[in-house]
Amino acid sequence: MTCATPAVGTAAIHALADAVIGGSGLPRRRAIAKAITLLESTRADHRLQADQLLVHLLPHAGGAFRLGLSGVPGVGKSTLIEALGLYLIDRGLTVAVLTVDPSSVVSGGSILGDKTRMERLSVHEKAYIRPSPSGGTLGGVAEKTREAMLVLEAAGYNVVIVETVGVGQSEIAVAGMTDMFVLMQLPNAGDELQAIKKGVMEVADLVLINKADLDPDAASRARAQITSSLRLLGQHGDPQRAAHDKSTWQPQVLQLSALSGQGMDGLWSATQEFRTLRRASGAWESRRHQQALAWMWERIEAGLRQAFRADAQVRARLPVLSKDVASGTVVASVAARELLSLFRPGVGTPPQAPLRRKGRSS
Amino acid sequence: MTCATPAVGTAAIHALADAVIGGSGLPRRRAIAKAITLLESTRADHRLQADQLLVHLLPHAGGAFRLGLSGVPGVGKSTLIEALGLYLIDRGLTVAVLTVDPSSVVSGGSILGDKTRMERLSVHEKAYIRPSPSGGTLGGVAEKTREAMLVLEAAGYNVVIVETVGVGQSEIAVAGMTDMFVLMQLPNAGDELQAIKKGVMEVADLVLINKADLDPDAASRARAQITSSLRLLGQHGDPQRAAHDKSTWQPQVLQLSALSGQGMDGLWSATQEFRTLRRASGAWESRRHQQALAWMWERIEAGLRQAFRADAQVRARLPVLSKDVASGTVVASVAARELLSLFRPGVGTPPQAPLRRKGRSS
Repeated sequence: MTCATPAVGTAAIHALADAVIGGSGLPRRRAIAKAITLLESTRADHRLQADQLLVHLLPHAGGAFRLGLSGVPGVGKSTLIEALGLYLIDRGLTVAVLTVDPSSVVSGGSILGDKTRMERLSVHEKAYIRPSPSGGTLGGVAEKTREAMLVLEAAGYNVVIVETVGVGQSEIAVAGMTDMFVLMQLPNAGDELQAIKKGVMEVADLVLINKADLDPDAASRARAQITSSLRLLGQHGDPQRAAHDKSTWQPQVLQLSALSGQGMDGLWSATQEFRTLRRASGAWESRRHQQALAWMWERIEAGLRQAFRADAQVRARLPVLSKDVASGTVVASVAARELLSLFRPGVGTPPQAPLRRKGRSS
Repeated sequence: MTCATPAVGTAAIHALADAVIGGSGLPRRRAIAKAITLLESTRADHRLQADQLLVHLLPHAGGAFRLGLSGVPGVGKSTLIEALGLYLIDRGLTVAVLTVDPSSVVSGGSILGDKTRMERLSVHEKAYIRPSPSGGTLGGVAEKTREAMLVLEAAGYNVVIVETVGVGQSEIAVAGMTDMFVLMQLPNAGDELQAIKKGVMEVADLVLINKADLDPDAASRARAQITSSLRLLGQHGDPQRAAHDKSTWQPQVLQLSALSGQGMDGLWSATQEFRTLRRASGAWESRRHQQALAWMWERIEAGLRQAFRADAQVRARLPVLSKDVASGTVVASVAARELLSLFRPGVGTPPQAPLRRKGRSS
């Protein structure tokens, strides 16, 4: 790959990586911004440079606590991030904030909104806030965010908070790129207005009931109900985890007030307990390994779908077959086999059976 | 496609289709068995014949009520199917039963087990029971079951029950091929032993608490708790569905005893209400359209993955890159791009930007 890229580019990328890591060159904040902008570019030559940059940065990444945060608009995510970020800075840590928002190209102006809502954190020298890359699919936005996280880790940030609004499957994507996924709720749980989307409750390592001080009774009821649902939903994808086993993490429900700061100690100690237990059991590392492999396969599958849809023969036939399948005049599996054989002859038909002339199948 | 198949085969397939539909030829039960066996064959020539058969049968399919049923082993699925099947036959309907069990190749003997447990239904002339095709991936097993369902519909069965044990993602697959998905539970809900797997509660249109007569108090508590969780889990993937809207179906929780038959009327009237409401709103048809398209794309993606993994260059490079990605020495997105370009040159790199020389990206 290097042969196609001019030597000057390679040297510049090396220098940029050094500046991100903090060795030399550009001021670090400028280097981070430049690196992330390069990663977000859709130009093919930029993409090659971005891949080179990642290769340089990767040995320095992986050291942060990756914290995912989600909740419906109005639940208080920005208020919590501002409070938690300053709380962590007070304890000598540095904090970076990323956002996954595939809708940002539509809503616009989210940069200003975020920075305004995180008034003190956004100007703090120990914090770095970067809004969602705009536009594109969720998969694309999530990929840029994962790569930006590596840049921020290489730059030495101790905690990377990845926030998302509840758009589509964005919570699942954020849970899939963080060490711990926190779901924020308002005290009026049980209200259909606050319905939790498919699969989100199951990936929550911690549920935070925010604004608990406004209605303590409602917050307690919500806590009991969510605790019960978490138990019912069960084993959280980890079949080896026995109930009531103190050595493994059980999803918890905490109350807090992001605005007053009440409950912040409890939140931070829960995250530390989570980290300690998961590190001791090996679940921390294995989650990261699985996330990396899942990310690779997700991108492979997205690339395969894209190549399939871009294929000239598939493009000519797909609209007709899709219509026929939806209307019930062509069987879906038959249509799939035909389209696959257009894309790549030989795909879609099962392999020829070995030499048995009459198998069990007749 | 027909040119590669001898004319005698085509005529035989036509005759088999006629016999399934009931026009002539083989006794219908034998024709159904032969048709499903053909669909399950992995031989390429059989697959071509099977596709032809499906083309003949499809215009006659689609008339059944497709009912999905899941629950942990011991919850009483076979007892319920026996009771419900005989209940429906008493009302003049015919019933077919299919099973999705990707593990059947391991456990073995499930045919005998099923038929023994459905003693009266299995020998009834108005019923047809076919065990899961054995072996293969869940996707493959699910595909055979979907195709077998079309055969049974073309043969005129009024209700097709697709049962699955809680193996892997099989519940989700069954929910994705049926009009209504019923999840069975024991009265001791809340007990971690009965934990519900990721995403299953969300796809349930109806939750049945079986063996409710054994412990009525526990059954009532379970009902309250599951009702509350269903409400919390929310809108069931249907954003247009307003809460408390009587014209749309809300997931319900019913108690019954499959063994004594108590609650069978309630179950059947719930399914009829479901059908009436969903047909009136158009949700019934649109679910089937979406299922057909999702099925097509699932098979396309499975075929693409299979072709990708079978590619010689990918096979040579994948093990090394997978190891490096898991261990954190190669970035997942970089590995994905490399593998994609081996599979199909040009895939994996973003499209070259249009004529802007300096975009917003720098």
